[in-house]
Amino acid sequence: MSQPPTQQRADFITGDDVRSACRASRWTGQTSGLAPGYAQANLVILPEAQAFDFLMFCRRNPKPCPLLDVTEPGEFTPRSLAPNSDLRTDLPSYRVWRDGELTDEIGDISALWRRDFVSFVIGCSFTFEAALLRANIPVRHIELERNVPMFRTNIECQPAGIFHGPMVVSMRPMTPSNAIRAVQITSRFADVHGAPIHLGLPEQIGVSDLQAPDFGEAVPVHRDELPVFWACGVTPQAVLMAAKPPLVITHTPGCMFVTDVLDETLALG
Amino acid sequence: MSQPPTQQRADFITGDDVRSACRASRWTGQTSGLAPGYAQANLVILPEAQAFDFLMFCRRNPKPCPLLDVTEPGEFTPRSLAPNSDLRTDLPSYRVWRDGELTDEIGDISALWRRDFVSFVIGCSFTFEAALLRANIPVRHIELERNVPMFRTNIECQPAGIFHGPMVVSMRPMTPSNAIRAVQITSRFADVHGAPIHLGLPEQIGVSDLQAPDFGEAVPVHRDELPVFWACGVTPQAVLMAAKPPLVITHTPGCMFVTDVLDETLALG
Repeated sequence: MSQPPTQQRADFITGDDVRSACRASRWTGQTSGLAPGYAQANLVILPEAQAFDFLMFCRRNPKPCPLLDVTEPGEFTPRSLAPNSDLRTDLPSYRVWRDGELTDEIGDISALWRRDFVSFVIGCSFTFEAALLRANIPVRHIELERNVPMFRTNIECQPAGIFHGPMVVSMRPMTPSNAIRAVQITSRFADVHGAPIHLGLPEQIGVSDLQAPDFGEAVPVHRDELPVFWACGVTPQAVLMAAKPPLVITHTPGCMFVTDVLDETLALG
Repeated sequence: MSQPPTQQRADFITGDDVRSACRASRWTGQTSGLAPGYAQANLVILPEAQAFDFLMFCRRNPKPCPLLDVTEPGEFTPRSLAPNSDLRTDLPSYRVWRDGELTDEIGDISALWRRDFVSFVIGCSFTFEAALLRANIPVRHIELERNVPMFRTNIECQPAGIFHGPMVVSMRPMTPSNAIRAVQITSRFADVHGAPIHLGLPEQIGVSDLQAPDFGEAVPVHRDELPVFWACGVTPQAVLMAAKPPLVITHTPGCMFVTDVLDETLALG
């Protein structure tokens, strides 16, 4: 048998197209821009022993950790998001963490699956960025084809059990009038981080140098722009790594779970 | 006959209470804080000869000139706002302007009324300030019992006929998180100026000194605050004065038309 033919990005029209290609190992790369209009999500898988603490952590910190679905122990299909999906195979790439250390990066976690695994599917800022772009609001890191700049803040998350730590935020520079529009637009997307948590005075949230992000890549902030900060899905990852539970499986950054749910169905109004 | 007894502010429960007192000359002062929850409005009365131009001006500049009602020529009851009201008598005080000059300040305009008069009832920021206060967002000029600071900007209104001029804005200092909440809250009130038009970088809109407002009174802006700017109902007044039509009647500043409409019914959602 020859290798399966490689697929072009434009071949992926629906969430199911992406998931099928991942399942068949025909796609192993980033999902940004695939199946436009379909919501993409972060994935965290934990044994049931740590699941209650993490669920409480997400509940207490909904802006950085907006839960789109949580499965029963052993269940690998988030039915509300994609009823024919399989979280063990349908992402391009997974990371396996043991005692807080990255031990493996693999394309299929079926062999590791346990009946006590609980899967947390967490909203992703791709959804509101698509809405910003549709409103003609430029998003600098997308224009520059960079990862979004992210910063640790001085805002402590509400702790829960073993999980605690500072909120991580993403930053997008905008003119004041676009910042006002962006507050309006992202307020409609409460399930994917919602409205900004700050704008304009970064030192107030403990961000001293906009050109030195803690994660992602720096982008220029022009003289006529304000830095606008959203709670970021890296927060739960940072908190997980700090808590060092015995075993966690996550998506590989940028290699998201693509759902059947349209971005617009996650919007209010 | 003795003088009618004077009324206390707390006596005014409804819009009708205020209007009745004005009609009987029992109230001639400012309306701020009277009949809490009822929307108050700006009033502009023009002869029909200038009314089309002014209506077009308001239509083209809805953020500074949000029209709540416009009467037919000669009609003095804005039925959608207060079906038993009389715009000739129901405000505490009126100003009469001839060729752009203030010629009179009176409590009743019945003697001046003409069958070609068109009345424009324009939304007022009192409505959204009440909503901000209900959300525990402090409003500095209210705390300090001052008039709101207002500034001429470098933003030109869309002209219409004889009417043209720069947009006037009001400024309220807020912490960044309150500024974000204020965008959300005031976005719901499109009929009373709606969302801010700017925040954070005043020089961009031609405001060089926050402590030197063009109208109203200055308020301090603290180090942890951003100046937030809303389109202001003084814009149409400034534009009217500049155009110098032969005759205009307006409310006296602060002496508004109090309607039967609840503030909340002017909100979306």
